[in-house]
Amino acid sequence: MIERLPQYYRLVSRLEAEGRSVVSSQDLGEDLGVTPAQLRKDLSYFGKFGKQGRGYSVPRLADALRGILGLDRRWTMVVVGVGRLGHAISSYPRFADQGFDIVGAYDSNPTAVGTQVGDLVVRDVSNMDDDLRLRPVDIGIVTVPAEAAQSVVDRLVRVGVHAILNYAPPRVQVPESIQLKQINPVLFLQSMTYDLKQSVERREQREMAGPTGSDSYPEGSTRRDA
Amino acid sequence: MIERLPQYYRLVSRLEAEGRSVVSSQDLGEDLGVTPAQLRKDLSYFGKFGKQGRGYSVPRLADALRGILGLDRRWTMVVVGVGRLGHAISSYPRFADQGFDIVGAYDSNPTAVGTQVGDLVVRDVSNMDDDLRLRPVDIGIVTVPAEAAQSVVDRLVRVGVHAILNYAPPRVQVPESIQLKQINPVLFLQSMTYDLKQSVERREQREMAGPTGSDSYPEGSTRRDA
Repeated sequence: MIERLPQYYRLVSRLEAEGRSVVSSQDLGEDLGVTPAQLRKDLSYFGKFGKQGRGYSVPRLADALRGILGLDRRWTMVVVGVGRLGHAISSYPRFADQGFDIVGAYDSNPTAVGTQVGDLVVRDVSNMDDDLRLRPVDIGIVTVPAEAAQSVVDRLVRVGVHAILNYAPPRVQVPESIQLKQINPVLFLQSMTYDLKQSVERREQREMAGPTGSDSYPEGSTRRDA
Repeated sequence: MIERLPQYYRLVSRLEAEGRSVVSSQDLGEDLGVTPAQLRKDLSYFGKFGKQGRGYSVPRLADALRGILGLDRRWTMVVVGVGRLGHAISSYPRFADQGFDIVGAYDSNPTAVGTQVGDLVVRDVSNMDDDLRLRPVDIGIVTVPAEAAQSVVDRLVRVGVHAILNYAPPRVQVPESIQLKQINPVLFLQSMTYDLKQSVERREQREMAGPTGSDSYPEGSTRRDA
């Protein structure tokens, strides 16, 4: 359920920016592909944000979600590994808007050390442990080659990082007290191939059955993905 | 539930590579943070893979999952937008291993067009529609700047791509018949800050309460993240 809250927040903060004052659980749920009942249940867990039959107050709900999600404060991050991926991530424009500040970038490659990414100068990773003991950060983003991932993660944990976003292909291990999210594009692709296979098979069956008058894919309809 | 299948497959295929012949729902569930009952329920949906009390046959389960997930065939992909992120993704080593072949790379930037990424030469995006009508592909990976994302997605849909993996920051819209996954690092970060906030608050409370004899974070324990 916690996984759904950031999505609720994204939608509610957009409504807030648009100046909407009230939103129903129907409207919220529909936009997010969640039943109104599930949505009310998810939000009721954190308190009362609306009056029965009157919908949710958008500003109050946005404030509450910011509080619940810890977005009413800023979080500091370092990026370890400033190859193409790390460089792209360091330049991602939406982190600071959302309260996530990249305060350091590290690499072991002498050609990367000393170069500029965004407002930062890449430092040699040999300085990382001392830097982070002196100025602790909340989150480490790991974009090093596969073979270096676990040792970088271990070092980040040792110097007191609380959460890790790992882009390196191998699954890494962390102590239970540390938050870990791993971004693996193959898992995203594999989660689509199940449906892809169905639609390819349906198409093949249709082709074998010969042309029919109607197209089963309505063209105008759109959806938002979760 | 479909979301969990790629994770089941990852684990089962590792066991298969290690030569394991049988695995229990307990062992599988424990490694994945899913109850054995949930795991049995998920898998029973697709047929019978094990005998009561005997565990699952690893090779049969791996084969079945490959079939269910559509991983018993190869899928073709194009990458649109070969900046730093697109370049990094085009070079990701695990796609081909897992049956995903990048067969084309496109960019609109004249300095990128004609350069090499992996085995491919980057083509001008103005050729994309004709190329894909001639040689259709299954999946489009979108790594263009935010403002170009929706129009690139629309073009990919028009030329018959069935699934889209979107790395561009805005949420894009697709017809219902098209699979869409959006990778947004901010959502991953926001899904960690809820717990981060709890642990920061616990630490602050402990610090206010003064030193105690025991550390509530057991150090040796490790976990795998979902």
